[in-house]
Amino acid sequence: MFRSAKAVLLRVSTELAHVCPAITVRFVRQSLGYSPLNRPLSSSPRWTEKKQRSPWLQLAEGQTMDGNIEEILAPLRLAVKEQGELVRQMKQDGAPDVDVAKAVAELKARKRNLEAKELSLQPKDGIVDRIKMEDTLKRRFFYDQAFAIYGGVSGLFDFGPVGCALKNNILQVWRQHFIQEEQILEVECTMLTPESVLKTSGHVDKFADYMVKDVKNGECFRADHLLKAHLQKLMSDKKCTAEKKAEMEGVVTQMDNHTQQELTDFFVKYNVKSPITGNDLTPPVSFNLMFQTSIGPGGNMPGYLRPETAQGIFLNFKRLLEFNQGKLPFAAAQIGNSFRNEISPRSGLIRVREFTMAEIEHFVDPSEKVHPKFSDVADLDILLYSSTAQTSGQSAQTMKLGGAVEQGVINNSVLGYFIGRIYLYLTKVGVAKDKLRFRQHMDNEMAHYACDCWDAETKTSYGWIEIVGCADRSCYDLKCHSRATKVPLVATKPLKEPRVVDVVQFEPNKGAIGKVYKKDAKLAMDYLSVCDGCFITEQERLLSETGEFSIETEGKSFKLTKDMVSVKRFQKTLHVEDVVPNVIEPSFGIGRIMYTIFEHTFQVREGDEQRTYFSFPATVAPYKCSVLPLSQNRDFVPFVRELSEVMTRNGVSHKVDDSSGSIGRRYARTDEIGVAFGITVDFDTVNKTPHTATLRDRDSMRQIRAEVSELPMIVRDLANGALSWGEVESKYPIFEGQETSKKDAVEE
Amino acid sequence: MFRSAKAVLLRVSTELAHVCPAITVRFVRQSLGYSPLNRPLSSSPRWTEKKQRSPWLQLAEGQTMDGNIEEILAPLRLAVKEQGELVRQMKQDGAPDVDVAKAVAELKARKRNLEAKELSLQPKDGIVDRIKMEDTLKRRFFYDQAFAIYGGVSGLFDFGPVGCALKNNILQVWRQHFIQEEQILEVECTMLTPESVLKTSGHVDKFADYMVKDVKNGECFRADHLLKAHLQKLMSDKKCTAEKKAEMEGVVTQMDNHTQQELTDFFVKYNVKSPITGNDLTPPVSFNLMFQTSIGPGGNMPGYLRPETAQGIFLNFKRLLEFNQGKLPFAAAQIGNSFRNEISPRSGLIRVREFTMAEIEHFVDPSEKVHPKFSDVADLDILLYSSTAQTSGQSAQTMKLGGAVEQGVINNSVLGYFIGRIYLYLTKVGVAKDKLRFRQHMDNEMAHYACDCWDAETKTSYGWIEIVGCADRSCYDLKCHSRATKVPLVATKPLKEPRVVDVVQFEPNKGAIGKVYKKDAKLAMDYLSVCDGCFITEQERLLSETGEFSIETEGKSFKLTKDMVSVKRFQKTLHVEDVVPNVIEPSFGIGRIMYTIFEHTFQVREGDEQRTYFSFPATVAPYKCSVLPLSQNRDFVPFVRELSEVMTRNGVSHKVDDSSGSIGRRYARTDEIGVAFGITVDFDTVNKTPHTATLRDRDSMRQIRAEVSELPMIVRDLANGALSWGEVESKYPIFEGQETSKKDAVEE
Repeated sequence: MFRSAKAVLLRVSTELAHVCPAITVRFVRQSLGYSPLNRPLSSSPRWTEKKQRSPWLQLAEGQTMDGNIEEILAPLRLAVKEQGELVRQMKQDGAPDVDVAKAVAELKARKRNLEAKELSLQPKDGIVDRIKMEDTLKRRFFYDQAFAIYGGVSGLFDFGPVGCALKNNILQVWRQHFIQEEQILEVECTMLTPESVLKTSGHVDKFADYMVKDVKNGECFRADHLLKAHLQKLMSDKKCTAEKKAEMEGVVTQMDNHTQQELTDFFVKYNVKSPITGNDLTPPVSFNLMFQTSIGPGGNMPGYLRPETAQGIFLNFKRLLEFNQGKLPFAAAQIGNSFRNEISPRSGLIRVREFTMAEIEHFVDPSEKVHPKFSDVADLDILLYSSTAQTSGQSAQTMKLGGAVEQGVINNSVLGYFIGRIYLYLTKVGVAKDKLRFRQHMDNEMAHYACDCWDAETKTSYGWIEIVGCADRSCYDLKCHSRATKVPLVATKPLKEPRVVDVVQFEPNKGAIGKVYKKDAKLAMDYLSVCDGCFITEQERLLSETGEFSIETEGKSFKLTKDMVSVKRFQKTLHVEDVVPNVIEPSFGIGRIMYTIFEHTFQVREGDEQRTYFSFPATVAPYKCSVLPLSQNRDFVPFVRELSEVMTRNGVSHKVDDSSGSIGRRYARTDEIGVAFGITVDFDTVNKTPHTATLRDRDSMRQIRAEVSELPMIVRDLANGALSWGEVESKYPIFEGQETSKKDAVEE
Repeated sequence: MFRSAKAVLLRVSTELAHVCPAITVRFVRQSLGYSPLNRPLSSSPRWTEKKQRSPWLQLAEGQTMDGNIEEILAPLRLAVKEQGELVRQMKQDGAPDVDVAKAVAELKARKRNLEAKELSLQPKDGIVDRIKMEDTLKRRFFYDQAFAIYGGVSGLFDFGPVGCALKNNILQVWRQHFIQEEQILEVECTMLTPESVLKTSGHVDKFADYMVKDVKNGECFRADHLLKAHLQKLMSDKKCTAEKKAEMEGVVTQMDNHTQQELTDFFVKYNVKSPITGNDLTPPVSFNLMFQTSIGPGGNMPGYLRPETAQGIFLNFKRLLEFNQGKLPFAAAQIGNSFRNEISPRSGLIRVREFTMAEIEHFVDPSEKVHPKFSDVADLDILLYSSTAQTSGQSAQTMKLGGAVEQGVINNSVLGYFIGRIYLYLTKVGVAKDKLRFRQHMDNEMAHYACDCWDAETKTSYGWIEIVGCADRSCYDLKCHSRATKVPLVATKPLKEPRVVDVVQFEPNKGAIGKVYKKDAKLAMDYLSVCDGCFITEQERLLSETGEFSIETEGKSFKLTKDMVSVKRFQKTLHVEDVVPNVIEPSFGIGRIMYTIFEHTFQVREGDEQRTYFSFPATVAPYKCSVLPLSQNRDFVPFVRELSEVMTRNGVSHKVDDSSGSIGRRYARTDEIGVAFGITVDFDTVNKTPHTATLRDRDSMRQIRAEVSELPMIVRDLANGALSWGEVESKYPIFEGQETSKKDAVEE
């Protein structure tokens, strides 16, 4: 899953608890829900100790540890560190969850403070002129608001020819880099999803934000955003007392922890009104972020547009396992659109209502969580921001992946391998290396999850934004769907040696249950047949102490007594064993990756503020090449046509611009949309044999001259990375100016 | 648009009528709605006369005009011809529309009869074993029902690795063939669409089917399908009198023409019950086929999932025109999913609720409807089934495209060019030439539309099915959206010579209108400012006769009197003129194309009924190549790895199968999913230098032997069409059997 909503309810239902006690639902992970179910099993974090002494630690590239800056940051770092230690201590002492949650929220607030200050102290020249960039994106129709002639709909965007080509290329490289090179099984599932599936995944109940509504015009606001903005305004008032200020700061810090009732009370207490009309607001209500619809004509199958693509892969697990001839590990992937009905979408492509994702689910035997190709990425230097660093007030640190896995900073080499592959992919498509980091979810240290999660984040004018999530999700998802559907989602593996195991199972008395529950008896028996050892033992205790226990399944309750069920324990010799695979899930937000590429490649020509361009890598550039006749002279036409035809035949995307502007103006126009190279047909092309034309590199603006017949292949090789511009320059003569002119052509 | 619903209401609203009088709404075209608005302007069809004598006419390839068969078909052909003549005569005589519609329905019924008989008389060996094929598709997970572990949802399918790869390749070829080669502007618009857009396009009001519901269990049925099945059952009863039978046959024939009330009456009269439970049914109600949802949290922006991708292109017309520097013609295209909430989906991939389309909108100046590259396709021999042939009881005829356009069988060379390009595309991706025809919509002859429409249809085990539509839609769509949004969707072109034109326009009296309509006055004035000459003249007549006329806009009515508005006529000298482009729309149903390819390429090995394969063209084959070690001997491993790595690096999709099955069994497994070629590493590979391996062609099962280092490039060139298998055979030695064995390897 990518991009989490602030979940309304963070607790795992007790029904799920005995199936998978260590894991909480999918979207809780970013919200630091600290419930009794995910209390740390050991009191000391797994890798805190070792890390400080690591030989792998280096300063991040471009990170200047200026003494002055560090002086300013020191107290902020200390504040984080102290709070981090407090949280750890509280957990160790078994403090009440609600207190720990509050302490964690305070820790996060201090961390945000530190990060904001760090960003503000960095040199400004690396920051993009967003208004200028967005003007180009709109003017050249990279993308724009959808349905504009009907007034537009916020959070919905259409991609124009340049944006669309760039997106296709980014996805094409993704397919090559992941699907082909990792031999991943690609699937394509429907976006329409029946409610039952999303009920199991937890989205129906918990994928929601709180919302308030203008009582008069019905305009909606996200409750937390509005309350925060309102309090910040109040606090900025000079008349606000220190006491009042501290109180309000407390409310803001704990924003993610407030219950619906608390939020309601704050809206009354602080007299929050609509910021637009000043009208009263309704009390906060929970608003589910999925688009609802109805499948089929009967009105009895509620459905949603999927909020992520991952579920489709889990549901096809058995077919995919079979396709892979029953063997683990294997990975499946899906590229497609997902939908989230944001209450108030903003920030352009970063928070939208319909977006393209690419998700991989790598299924692996939990006892063999080692990636055979990890050594291919072990030497990569990557900026890592571990949860330990975050809770100790430290900065992100560049480490070699090999070291990070070895020291347990990254939980295992499968996860480490994917982090490396994600890094290689992102930098290949145009994300700047020095503005990319991997940040570990703090939850991982806070609670002793079986899973570990790292987000690829990029530095943009909006601050650090998450563009890829990479999570070890353990066995959570398959177990949920398996339990809900009674279909075992497991792989089988032969044991090296037969094994004798203790079996604990319920032994239902079919007759007795049937007598009481009639046709529902089967439901109860199905349920009993899939319970695990822990649960059975717990119920056995109840049975002997109270003579009964209760279960709930498919909305029905069953009270089971001693005459209906007993517990049987015996030994069994196994030759194969069932394995519920663990899942490593890299999840890419394509729109956010695109947005990052726009910011990281947007350039202004030195000395000419008006000439801007995108230095897209040639592999993803919307067009690889432009073909420009020097002027509208008709002698150029056959050469332009020949070049265009050969490039078309060889699948080299290009754009002919034979309009009347000067050549410089046309170069500027093609640079502006990031065309990687430009071929110009001039009078030397026409007048001299062998016929040659110039080839220009967008970034350096340098040009060489080569034969017309060679040029399409040169561009193709430049575009697919088989050739570098440096190599081209060393092989062909640099172009300085044409030697003949129109006059020569006429004379000849 | 692709795939039309049987529209509930076929009449164009009068509001639209004066904007574009000759055209009816998008989805009416296949339903032969014969309203006063599309009465033929001339009484004789445009090209009927010439066609019979055409030198371009030839018999379709593989069409055996067996005398015996023709004898059987003759009376059926005559029946069609007679009815076709009757319809023409009725129109010529100005018969009431309702009578003409009935006659047309009878004509269509006779045509269906003829076609069914023709199909049934054809040799059976060309017909695929659908059960066997579908078993393979399911077993090897090409695609399968979505949400199966949750019980499944009809009309929703997931594509597995093989289906997904095939689909990606089909789309990749589509992009190369259309986007690249025709320099089309690709866009990507959102699937979520606000209601206002689909209100304008007519889908909200008219994109619907009639439905009845089981009163007890709520099960839904399509009214027309159910009534037809019920009547057919009654007619098959031996006790049914000839009179009763004729009556019921009449009802079936006129099925598309019945009003809601008539349908209701028939359900009562014939006592139709649920075929499953025997329960009573509700009366037929209109059911809109779009999936509805709500955009944003306010509940005040109803939206739908788009039923087609075309609308997004029309809405971006102005941006696209600007991107093309204001010049016509240009084409835009979109690939993406659309949604239709079918009442009872069936026929596998052919009628589904979520499907991928690829649509092109080619915008052209109506006065220059000539395609400069038409000569590239003019010599193609294509099976055409013109509306004249259809209404005269003739078969489809193979014609050269050049002749078809020259004789006016196809309306213009732009449409003709696209028909040719569609033909080339379909046959490139695996549609059989002899099972592909282009059928003209009969509407074109019936009503004198400005537009012409041809469907590419393929012969499958379901009969002829539409897989691509290719319509000349005139200026209909742009005009509708322009009127609804008040945004002029036009191109401008300079006149060769300045032109003096007569202008007719409303001259509103702002004060008088404002006095009566206050703040709504602007609405009325906006409306008046965009009316066309015909409409103005008509209202002028009303104004002078009755002193007033009324208009409606945005749900509000305005009565306008003489003091509020007058009509002004004057002359103006123009230097440029506005052009509302015409639109040629090729629209591809990707799922149906895939299904056709499955049927047309499914093969059974001669002499072995159990061995089946798909003879996909290498370009679209899901995997280009398999890599098979002869056995599990470890000496083969480095060669397999090297081959796999080089192919990966060169983007050649492949599948390593090193499982323990015999080589023959593994060939069969890869053939079954249509892998185009197979490389086998054997003992000669290991024992001899230079190291060689065998390459096998799936269709002929012949093998050659070539160096391991050469093989990946050979496969790449075979896959992209740069090399044919014949050429490979002529260049490399045919493989008969390996010369060394494991023993040799050990000894060396």
